[in-house]
Amino acid sequence: MTGAIDIGGTKIAVGLVAPEGRVIICKSFSTHEEPSPTCAARRIAELLDRCRSELATPLDGIGIGCTGPVDPITGTVEDVDLLPGWNGFRLVDEMQHLLGVSAAMENDADAAALAEAQWGGGRGSTRFLYVTVGTGIGVSLLLDGIIYRGAGGAHPEAGHQTIDASGPVCYCGATGCWEVLASGPAMARWAIENTYKDDSLPLETSAREVCRLARSGHPVAKLAIAREAHYLGVGIANLIGMFCPDCLVLGGGLMEESELFLDEACRVASSRCKLVPFGAVRIGKAALGSEAPLLGAARVWQMRQEGITKAMSCS
Amino acid sequence: MTGAIDIGGTKIAVGLVAPEGRVIICKSFSTHEEPSPTCAARRIAELLDRCRSELATPLDGIGIGCTGPVDPITGTVEDVDLLPGWNGFRLVDEMQHLLGVSAAMENDADAAALAEAQWGGGRGSTRFLYVTVGTGIGVSLLLDGIIYRGAGGAHPEAGHQTIDASGPVCYCGATGCWEVLASGPAMARWAIENTYKDDSLPLETSAREVCRLARSGHPVAKLAIAREAHYLGVGIANLIGMFCPDCLVLGGGLMEESELFLDEACRVASSRCKLVPFGAVRIGKAALGSEAPLLGAARVWQMRQEGITKAMSCS
Repeated sequence: MTGAIDIGGTKIAVGLVAPEGRVIICKSFSTHEEPSPTCAARRIAELLDRCRSELATPLDGIGIGCTGPVDPITGTVEDVDLLPGWNGFRLVDEMQHLLGVSAAMENDADAAALAEAQWGGGRGSTRFLYVTVGTGIGVSLLLDGIIYRGAGGAHPEAGHQTIDASGPVCYCGATGCWEVLASGPAMARWAIENTYKDDSLPLETSAREVCRLARSGHPVAKLAIAREAHYLGVGIANLIGMFCPDCLVLGGGLMEESELFLDEACRVASSRCKLVPFGAVRIGKAALGSEAPLLGAARVWQMRQEGITKAMSCS
Repeated sequence: MTGAIDIGGTKIAVGLVAPEGRVIICKSFSTHEEPSPTCAARRIAELLDRCRSELATPLDGIGIGCTGPVDPITGTVEDVDLLPGWNGFRLVDEMQHLLGVSAAMENDADAAALAEAQWGGGRGSTRFLYVTVGTGIGVSLLLDGIIYRGAGGAHPEAGHQTIDASGPVCYCGATGCWEVLASGPAMARWAIENTYKDDSLPLETSAREVCRLARSGHPVAKLAIAREAHYLGVGIANLIGMFCPDCLVLGGGLMEESELFLDEACRVASSRCKLVPFGAVRIGKAALGSEAPLLGAARVWQMRQEGITKAMSCS
C-alpha cells in the first residue's frame, strides 16, 4: 500500500492507494487549520497512521503531490503563493522522519500526469502532455513515462506561454498568456466585463455560472464560451506544434463543462497545426476525476522506486 | 574523414569534415542545375569522390543535412517546398549505394544544432535549443545531446507557435505565428507596408536593406527593428518557458545583424519569464558561421555511429 498526500492551498488530503491504482481510504482537513507546515506535517502523519491502522496494512512508502513550485530533488516546498510560511520546508525529510518510510514529492500537475499516464487517458503514450485548466493552466510533459525537467530540474510553465501578445496583462508580468486568456477566471472576467444594462453579471460570477448561463442561452455567456474555445484551441495548437505528442489529456475544474467548448477548441487547434501530424495526437479528457490527486501522489513514490530498482539492476 | 552533404533549395554543398570539426575541402553546385534527385545524387557522389581523391583519404561515412521535412529514420526526403520532384526519394539508400559507405540524414536545422552542440555555442548543454532566424524560423531541441523527436519521429515546428493570435496570417494557415512576425521577410514586409510618401521603400526591399537603413537613421526602419526585437523576444520567452533550457543559441541569416536587436529581444524575453529560471539560460549567437551546415551534416553521421556503437556495447 502506498501512502498518498495531496497538498493544495485549500485542502490537504491523505489516503492509501493500492498497487493497481485504487484509493482505498482517504481523509482530509483544511490547509488553514494548521498554523505551520510542521503542524500540518504532524497532522498528515497522524491521519496516514490512522488509515494504516484502520486497514491493518503496512505502508511501503509515501508519495506527495504539492501545489508548486516545489523542488522534487531535495523534497522542499518553495515560494508557493497558496502556502504562506512553507517556503524552504523540507516536507519529504519530515514525512520520512515521522513515518519511517521513504517519501518522494512532485508538483501536483506532474503527479496528476503520472496517474493519467499509468491508469487514465495517457496509457501507452510515449509523448504525453497533461493540461489542467481551472483557476490556472498547468502543463506537464512525460517522455517515455518520465517527467520532463528543464535546466536545474525546473518545471516549465507552458500555461504562461504568450498566445496573444496584444492581450491583457497576466499576474506573471507578461501580456496575453494562455492562462490569462483561457483559465476559468479569465472566462468569467471577460463575461462580466462584456455585459451591461439588462444582462449585466455580478462581479463574483464564476466560470461555472457562465457555463450555466450559456446553456440557458445568455448571449454574452455564449460569446465567453466561444472565446474560451478559441483561446484554448490556440494554446493546444502551440503545445502540439512544439512537442508533437501522441496524446494530450485535459483535466482540471473547467473540463467538467468541456462539452460546451472542447470540440470547438480541437477544431481551432487542428486548423492551426498544418505542419505537424495533428492526426497522430489522441486528445481527450482526464479519466481519473476526483481521485487523480491521490493516485498521482502515490504514483510519484512508485515511479521513484521503479527508478531506483532499475538503476540498481543496471549497476 | 566524414563526408558531409548540405541540401538546400538554392545550393547543394558537399565536403569532407575532420573528426575534430573542421571542413577540410568543400565543393558545391546549384540545386536547379540537376533535373532530378537521381541526377543530383550522382553529381553529389562524383563530387564527394573527387574530394576523397584530392585528399587521398578514405571516407568513413556520409552525413546529410537537408531542408525539411525529411524522414530521418527511413532516410527519405518528404514534400519539401524547395525541392520539387524529390518527394519520396530515398536519399540515404541512394548515397550508400553510390559510395559504398553508411549514410544518415536529418533536417538541416537539427543538423546545425548538433554541430553547435558539439563544436559551437551549445557545448556542455543538456537542454539545448537552437533557433535559426532567416527566411523562416526553425527550432531544434537537443536533450542530453540527442535530437528531440515527437510522435512517429515528427520534427516539431516551434517557429510556427502562435505568439499574437490577433496578428497577420501565415502561409501555414494560422495567424500571428512567430515566423510571420519575426523572420527576415516579416521585418522587411512590415517596413515596406508602413512607409509612405517621402520615405517609401521599394517592394523588393530586403531585411538586410532595412537593417542598413535603420543604421543610417531611417525612422520606419528603426521601428521595424524595434518590432523585430519585441516579437523575437516574445518567441524566445515562450521557448524558455516551455523547455527551461540551459542554453539557447540563435543562428541564421538575420543574426548577422543581431547587434541591432538581440539585446532588446533578450530584455523583452527576460521581462516575460518571471516564473522560470531565466538566469540559468545561456543565450548567444551561433559560433560556427558558414561552416555550420557541413559540420552539422558530418555530425549527423557521427551521432548515428556513436548511437550504434553504444547500443552494441550494451547488448
